[in-house]
Amino acid sequence: MSASDVAKDQLLSIIERIERLEEEKKGISDDIKEVYAEAKGNGFDTKVLRKVISIRKQDAAEREEQDAILELYLSALGMPA
Amino acid sequence: MSASDVAKDQLLSIIERIERLEEEKKGISDDIKEVYAEAKGNGFDTKVLRKVISIRKQDAAEREEQDAILELYLSALGMPA
Amino acid sequence: MSASDVAKDQLLSIIERIERLEEEKKGISDDIKEVYAEAKGNGFDTKVLRKVISIRKQDAAEREEQDAILELYLSALGMPA
Amino acid sequence: MSASDVAKDQLLSIIERIERLEEEKKGISDDIKEVYAEAKGNGFDTKVLRKVISIRKQDAAEREEQDAILELYLSALGMPA
Repeated sequence: MSASDVAKDQLLSIIERIERLEEEKKGISDDIKEVYAEAKGNGFDTKVLRKVISIRKQDAAEREEQDAILELYLSALGMPA
Repeated sequence: MSASDVAKDQLLSIIERIERLEEEKKGISDDIKEVYAEAKGNGFDTKVLRKVISIRKQDAAEREEQDAILELYLSALGMPA
Repeated sequence: MSASDVAKDQLLSIIERIERLEEEKKGISDDIKEVYAEAKGNGFDTKVLRKVISIRKQDAAEREEQDAILELYLSALGMPA
Repeated sequence: MSASDVAKDQLLSIIERIERLEEEKKGISDDIKEVYAEAKGNGFDTKVLRKVISIRKQDAAEREEQDAILELYLSALGMPA
């Protein structure tokens, strides 16, 4: 096997590994969409579900602080908190 | 002027119009970043500013409804509202 | 005017400047879409137009080098260059 | 088990399924980054690798057609093809 053949094999192996991983990733993205669709079908609000998931990722203390600043700004602008 | 020259002129004109608009767009994006940077320098929380701007775009009634659903979900999950 | 009023004015001014800039940016994005739509109406391929604009941004020497590597990889994979 | 308990369980199950899928997706994205990093370490040009993968997804006939139009436009603009 020549040096050039090794590089060819290596190139093909890299490309195929990435393609396989991209496919798996696409499959999981589809699964996520399905769970949301199913949740919607069961009467859940998907926009709020996304919000809940984002909140669960946040640090609780930081979230509280951000909410307090938000209330301050909204009240300064005369908007309902 | 041949038909082909017309097409050349048309092509160049299209390309240049788009490039000029893209440049203008980039300039405005830079201006927006500057306003945020200036606001940060004056002690404002830019993450919350973005949130305020997004709230101002929302319909008030819809926002209230979404907040109510969010509280419901968070309470069901035993999380602070 | 109290310190708090100053902050209120400052906050409102920041918000309104950003909203105005966002609106301008949206206007330009719409203009760009229109130029592409018009170009399409005149028989130009918009996907290729985007490619041309991207190529014009690239450094010519760098582009040539990337194209040479691409040909190498495609030929190693037995794909047409 | 009350109707409300069922909804709570359902909500938590939805949230946890999405969170688990998001985590898997993140894991795969990290794997893809690693393959690219490894390829780079072995002397491959990752920008061109991405281009190769995108070309392999394209229909060959369509790609040829797009390339022909691109050459036409570049030549009309006096740019090297």
